[in-house]
Amino acid sequence: MQFDESSLTYNDQGLIPAIAQEADTGEVLMLAWMNAEAVRRSLETGRVTYWSRSRQAFWVKGETSGHVQELIELRVDCDRDCLLVLVRQSGPACHTNRRSCFYTAIRDGDEIQIMSPEV
Amino acid sequence: MQFDESSLTYNDQGLIPAIAQEADTGEVLMLAWMNAEAVRRSLETGRVTYWSRSRQAFWVKGETSGHVQELIELRVDCDRDCLLVLVRQSGPACHTNRRSCFYTAIRDGDEIQIMSPEV
Repeated sequence: MQFDESSLTYNDQGLIPAIAQEADTGEVLMLAWMNAEAVRRSLETGRVTYWSRSRQAFWVKGETSGHVQELIELRVDCDRDCLLVLVRQSGPACHTNRRSCFYTAIRDGDEIQIMSPEV
Repeated sequence: MQFDESSLTYNDQGLIPAIAQEADTGEVLMLAWMNAEAVRRSLETGRVTYWSRSRQAFWVKGETSGHVQELIELRVDCDRDCLLVLVRQSGPACHTNRRSCFYTAIRDGDEIQIMSPEV
């Protein structure tokens, strides 16, 4: 069946959450949001493109930082309201310069940082 | 620093997205939503508990199906508006009886099912 990005379920802001996962290691890097046009652009260009809710603009990941995400594969969940984006990440995915945005773990009730910024 | 679930950023429905990842394999299983109380219960009981948006009720994953998620570790992202939940999943995570909800891949513009229901 041909994929049509308009067949996805978007929230009332026209957005769908997209989980970015490193294709080689399986590491979950970040979660960001796409609108239908960002989904289309990601597939067309092979460069993962989100919709920035704070800037209200398209966000070609790494366009300013150089930390681009090459699209390896896009997957859709059973409810068609979430995307899994397999990527090859150049450099850190997180704006704090860490590999992943999920660098804070809850252990024994405390917040522990389990990842350092890359240098 | 002691973790306080009320310090997370919830959306206007009081919910935060939670990505469930199999702790041993790194496979991304599903995305669901939690409210602050679901976060608290997950940590307290070690059984991953979501908030069902369709039923508007707590959803102890696997309570009816037996396909429970044992909580291995909860992680918070840099913006504190998304959770990564490392789990040990019993049986399939998806209501379609597939291991993961992300069983549809987009390849060459077509939707391909890459995972079969378990029997």
